[in-house]
Amino acid sequence: MRKNIGYIFVFSILLALKNQLNPIGGRLLTRKPIVSIVSAGLSKFGKRRGLFGRELFVEATSEAFEKCPNLDPRKDIKAAFIGMMSESLEHQGHTGPTVLDWAGLLPIQAFRTEGACGSSATAIRCGIFAIRSGLADIVLVGGVEKMTHRNTADVTEYLAMACDFPFEQWNGLTFPGLFAMVATAHMHKYSTTEEQMALVAVKNHHHGALNPKAHMQKEVPLEKAMSSRVIAWPLKLYDCSLITDGASCLVLSKPELARKFTDTPVHIIGSGQASDTIGLYERKEFTSLKAGRLAAQEAYKMAGVEASTIDVAEVHDCFTIAEILAYEDLGFCKPGEGGPFIEEGQSHIGGSVAVCTSGGLKAKGHPVGATGTAQAYEIYLQLTGQAGKRQVKGAEIGLTHNVGGLGATGVVNIYSRE
Amino acid sequence: MRKNIGYIFVFSILLALKNQLNPIGGRLLTRKPIVSIVSAGLSKFGKRRGLFGRELFVEATSEAFEKCPNLDPRKDIKAAFIGMMSESLEHQGHTGPTVLDWAGLLPIQAFRTEGACGSSATAIRCGIFAIRSGLADIVLVGGVEKMTHRNTADVTEYLAMACDFPFEQWNGLTFPGLFAMVATAHMHKYSTTEEQMALVAVKNHHHGALNPKAHMQKEVPLEKAMSSRVIAWPLKLYDCSLITDGASCLVLSKPELARKFTDTPVHIIGSGQASDTIGLYERKEFTSLKAGRLAAQEAYKMAGVEASTIDVAEVHDCFTIAEILAYEDLGFCKPGEGGPFIEEGQSHIGGSVAVCTSGGLKAKGHPVGATGTAQAYEIYLQLTGQAGKRQVKGAEIGLTHNVGGLGATGVVNIYSRE
Repeated sequence: MRKNIGYIFVFSILLALKNQLNPIGGRLLTRKPIVSIVSAGLSKFGKRRGLFGRELFVEATSEAFEKCPNLDPRKDIKAAFIGMMSESLEHQGHTGPTVLDWAGLLPIQAFRTEGACGSSATAIRCGIFAIRSGLADIVLVGGVEKMTHRNTADVTEYLAMACDFPFEQWNGLTFPGLFAMVATAHMHKYSTTEEQMALVAVKNHHHGALNPKAHMQKEVPLEKAMSSRVIAWPLKLYDCSLITDGASCLVLSKPELARKFTDTPVHIIGSGQASDTIGLYERKEFTSLKAGRLAAQEAYKMAGVEASTIDVAEVHDCFTIAEILAYEDLGFCKPGEGGPFIEEGQSHIGGSVAVCTSGGLKAKGHPVGATGTAQAYEIYLQLTGQAGKRQVKGAEIGLTHNVGGLGATGVVNIYSRE
Repeated sequence: MRKNIGYIFVFSILLALKNQLNPIGGRLLTRKPIVSIVSAGLSKFGKRRGLFGRELFVEATSEAFEKCPNLDPRKDIKAAFIGMMSESLEHQGHTGPTVLDWAGLLPIQAFRTEGACGSSATAIRCGIFAIRSGLADIVLVGGVEKMTHRNTADVTEYLAMACDFPFEQWNGLTFPGLFAMVATAHMHKYSTTEEQMALVAVKNHHHGALNPKAHMQKEVPLEKAMSSRVIAWPLKLYDCSLITDGASCLVLSKPELARKFTDTPVHIIGSGQASDTIGLYERKEFTSLKAGRLAAQEAYKMAGVEASTIDVAEVHDCFTIAEILAYEDLGFCKPGEGGPFIEEGQSHIGGSVAVCTSGGLKAKGHPVGATGTAQAYEIYLQLTGQAGKRQVKGAEIGLTHNVGGLGATGVVNIYSRE
């Protein structure tokens, strides 16, 4: 009888382990992979004069394909999802076949996904759907935006198409103004300071100085950030992300195939997406971006991890206040504590979670359509130990947080190395 | 021994039947459903003055939801994919959350898909991926475009963003010019005539006159079509589709759930998509749209049907020559025989395959982002016996053929009633 109980005990332990672990390629993983990143590419970010967006995209795919010699791109890839925000910038829509043509990937089925600044994060989501459907084992996801050939006023206008036309754009509101309202609401409710926001810029420019692909690779001291010209009070020049040219991509496979292409796959283990009102005027709260919060909850639940487990995160720092909101929406700290969180250095490399080690949208740059997959590229580097001077030691679990517009689209993905 | 052979024979028959038939909801179907359409909606097409695109979209979802009382849209729908081509027309991007907000569907995850005039067909493809992934059992797919508030020159320019900027748009080429080159190539190679093209217009306007939601509901006699003013020779006014406002949607479910929502589900049994060069100047042939041809091959193979099986089809008649190409690319006739095919009345209701019974892009209208799902809406009506005066008797198998730009995107879906 005692012996039987012993057997039952051992059996129960094994069953619990089986439910916990997930066999992929003969290995037992502690967390269940949804899809795997087997390669990734990123163009140099910056002012890329004389190049079309499609050429930047080829720069990204060339890196991804060169790093993955076992991949025969035109044969193996079954679908491509490409994020791009604005047809107006290059007077060019129909982005899917356009960039695939230049990348030598025709006649692979190609989709453009648009979710404003979250466009390529939604491409990752579509890639996940395609792979999990069983209809495409390997997909390319990516994004591109060519911006710096247009003047700032034009770019600001085109980006404003991601907020509400009849009620916001029409009245002259653009994103600096909208995020300024978010910032003043946060300051009013939680006593967040201009200096705390500036500290986000200081941190991300510090990280950007360590990233050879970043648009701006120089330190910005606190005094410089604080004394820069006001764009829309309380947001100053250094509170704003950069207008940048760039492209990014990931090669995703179903987890069972990942080891065929790489010895160091990174698995997406959780993913969430939600929507919010297009207009800020429709919201009950200005101090949190609900779609990002809901997306995070879904992603954490799917991954079976908590905020405290995240080692490294790329969050949507389109304005410094947006990074502070992200700390709170992602549960890195409590609501209202985002200001002290940056002040205490909690989001620095070496802090409780290293945030925007790439330099973020703030210093690496924000070619809007490319940003979502560029965030995933940084996490891929970090979890495979390829992040050079900005490497977070022992990083195992990463997160990306990409929002579109003023958070009408929110996408969060969680990544694990094997 | 003889008895055993008898058993083996019966067993083989049963096995063959099992592979042939597919059990869904206790019923045996002869063709395997990928996803099911459980409801559909279409706004009135036409000049819809004083309305935003998002309001037209609500007109479409209202119809779909009213027809499906067992659906609790905000609770049951897990994702929405919305096709829209041009942010420039309404100075509004970020279409996913914008239209979902107005349709009362927040915070459901929302994606805009763009594949030029094939935008909402790519939304259907994404919907298929999402459902087959098991991550979303019920999804909304749809499309919208508001166009008639802009002047024709602006619309022509915005649409031209779906062809190549540096090599085509830059040199003044727009779609009437591009399709005129296709038409002259077809005339040169196959002796296709202007009158044969005009007959496509006559047929589709005849069908449009039977569709209360069509933009133009009047007959166009052959003489009128032939004598209309030249837009880009040989294409005349009546060879061109209409600039139209409209929206459309489908509620898709996984097949096992379809009967919960409707007694007359229509199943998508085959689906294909491919890409081609963005520029016409890169093509070896002008007389066929390769992406549409490849998409058709994939869809036929998946569905296990042949072109001759199709009872009713909505094809991409953006210009009359495009419908003639579609007959050939879809295998309704041999290459070069598209002209005689329309002349013989083969594509009329009562012919070998009824093509564009809705009136098509030609008469129903072509609000570009809405067209793909609007085509599926017509097939849904035909296969559920709801097509009124234009009903194709006994229609069982339908097809939609939607191309983007000059065929750089091609999507074909095949549908079956139960």
